[in-house]
Amino acid sequence: MVAVVISEKALIAQIRRMAKTAASRAVTTGIGDDCGVLRTLPRRGQQTDTLVTTDFTLEGTHFRRDWHSAESVGHRCLARGLSDIAAMGGEPVAAFLSLALPRDLPQSWVGRFARSLIGLAERYGVTLAGGDTAESPNGILADIVVVGTVPKGNAVLRSRARPGDHLYVSGELGGSAAAVWIMRKEMLKKSKRKLNPREYSRHFFPEPRIELGRVLREKGLASAMIDTSDGLSTDLAHICEESGVGAELREESVPRASVGKPSRKVDLQFALHGGEDYELLFTAPPGKRIPSRIAGVPITQIGQITRGRKIFLRNRDGVGYELRPQGWEHFRK
Amino acid sequence: MVAVVISEKALIAQIRRMAKTAASRAVTTGIGDDCGVLRTLPRRGQQTDTLVTTDFTLEGTHFRRDWHSAESVGHRCLARGLSDIAAMGGEPVAAFLSLALPRDLPQSWVGRFARSLIGLAERYGVTLAGGDTAESPNGILADIVVVGTVPKGNAVLRSRARPGDHLYVSGELGGSAAAVWIMRKEMLKKSKRKLNPREYSRHFFPEPRIELGRVLREKGLASAMIDTSDGLSTDLAHICEESGVGAELREESVPRASVGKPSRKVDLQFALHGGEDYELLFTAPPGKRIPSRIAGVPITQIGQITRGRKIFLRNRDGVGYELRPQGWEHFRK
Repeated sequence: MVAVVISEKALIAQIRRMAKTAASRAVTTGIGDDCGVLRTLPRRGQQTDTLVTTDFTLEGTHFRRDWHSAESVGHRCLARGLSDIAAMGGEPVAAFLSLALPRDLPQSWVGRFARSLIGLAERYGVTLAGGDTAESPNGILADIVVVGTVPKGNAVLRSRARPGDHLYVSGELGGSAAAVWIMRKEMLKKSKRKLNPREYSRHFFPEPRIELGRVLREKGLASAMIDTSDGLSTDLAHICEESGVGAELREESVPRASVGKPSRKVDLQFALHGGEDYELLFTAPPGKRIPSRIAGVPITQIGQITRGRKIFLRNRDGVGYELRPQGWEHFRK
Repeated sequence: MVAVVISEKALIAQIRRMAKTAASRAVTTGIGDDCGVLRTLPRRGQQTDTLVTTDFTLEGTHFRRDWHSAESVGHRCLARGLSDIAAMGGEPVAAFLSLALPRDLPQSWVGRFARSLIGLAERYGVTLAGGDTAESPNGILADIVVVGTVPKGNAVLRSRARPGDHLYVSGELGGSAAAVWIMRKEMLKKSKRKLNPREYSRHFFPEPRIELGRVLREKGLASAMIDTSDGLSTDLAHICEESGVGAELREESVPRASVGKPSRKVDLQFALHGGEDYELLFTAPPGKRIPSRIAGVPITQIGQITRGRKIFLRNRDGVGYELRPQGWEHFRK
């Protein structure tokens, strides 16, 4: 299948050319060898730990070509990995992209995808240092690996929340889920209406909270942290499970995203269960003073960690009910 | 989609249980956080570089469920990544598995896949330290990331071959391609005949050449190295391109694999162009004495590096023709 071999070669050459502009000292060997070679030098004499995360971006599961531009898909693909690094308080260093493409995909789609991904990488000083290409039997399949560093022993884990800790979230929640919900509705109506990415930027071009995560780690503010990729109810459950604790949320404190034009706040259900906002959810001991804004991002206290193993949501009248993780369905009907 | 959330959770729990037995000191935080955290301690006071590689294993492209057992798919998935580490002369440390599964896949398939993958990981002291799970819209999709180490500056690259260097390959070539060819033929005949994995072990259960790669690096024997995942003609072209050199192969020296029962040697074309043998192809300066067997694996000199940029194949009568990389088609017709 000469056609595919040539296009794969052209693709690698294209990505390689684009990635060269973003080369960093930490990557001694990038695209064009069996492995990427990373050299993380101790900073100010301090040893580092290496962070590794890997995330799928699958057509039909994480995006649809008729709803998401190539630019949005490229941006979100890398943002997912960067957000995991942010959730450990780490600094991203290098990315590796595995990309399987269907035979009939226009080369221009790949160019726009790669340019957007590499643009985001450059803004965070991340080098695209390798990956894999294959022919996909069905749809566009991407897997992004991001490698980062954190000073030795300082990664902020999910497992260190303690009863009495306060619970915080960055930014606003539910904006991404609201966009998905509208797109699904339009799809069922067979409508051709497209959302304006600028009115739903948290969905189409989420900004990973790298700087916020770094500050929280450096100042020793967060006891446990996770990013809200699966939704508040699910991600909080991850913290509680890993830490062996429970939590209590105050309904009216959960910051709901504003979307659309004219903008309006999303329903509570989106903020509680909607995924892919890539905000940071973290806990801090009650003695720590948490500013209302860190690295330009608003921080809201939404509840606290409790001794029991369950998560309760309490409304304005003080009535509480158990909040169960609802998972996040992406694009399935 | 509660069913998928539960099965995903069960899957992670299952893999986590299995992976625990293989925990290593180098992995301080494994499955269950946003990132895996690796700590590579200097060995005997020597600083290390970090190697990262990522490889797809896609149903319909790299395997077929009716031809490959779950055990074979799990083994090959990790072996691909380990082989890339071997090709740098590195030592593998940790693996990260991204797995997207179709809704109707039996849980038992996943268990057998994971057990086989983790069994191979354990044999090489590799910890399964994280990954990602998703629902696949079509077929089983896996992406394996392997992280390894090599003493600082000692990774064996593709780009250091020099004119006059001798060219060597480990083991035998073409065995994997021969298996694919037979399976394809049977498929066209709509036959139900299955190959015996023991008669075609290089295809179904390839052993990565980790120990061989390590010895070649430690003793400073190899100037350039790659693994034969795409086939001799393509992988040699990679070395030549990256090094800015050419090569001359001796047809009768290329070691052809023995397959089937009674066993017979594969055709030359399979040995020249067939991929997925995961042998090591390397160059060495003419002054280096290369043993005929290293770490239990036979080593064969098959040609040498030349000044021109082309690759020539010379037959027994001294007649040469240019050998062009043919790529490797996996399972496409």
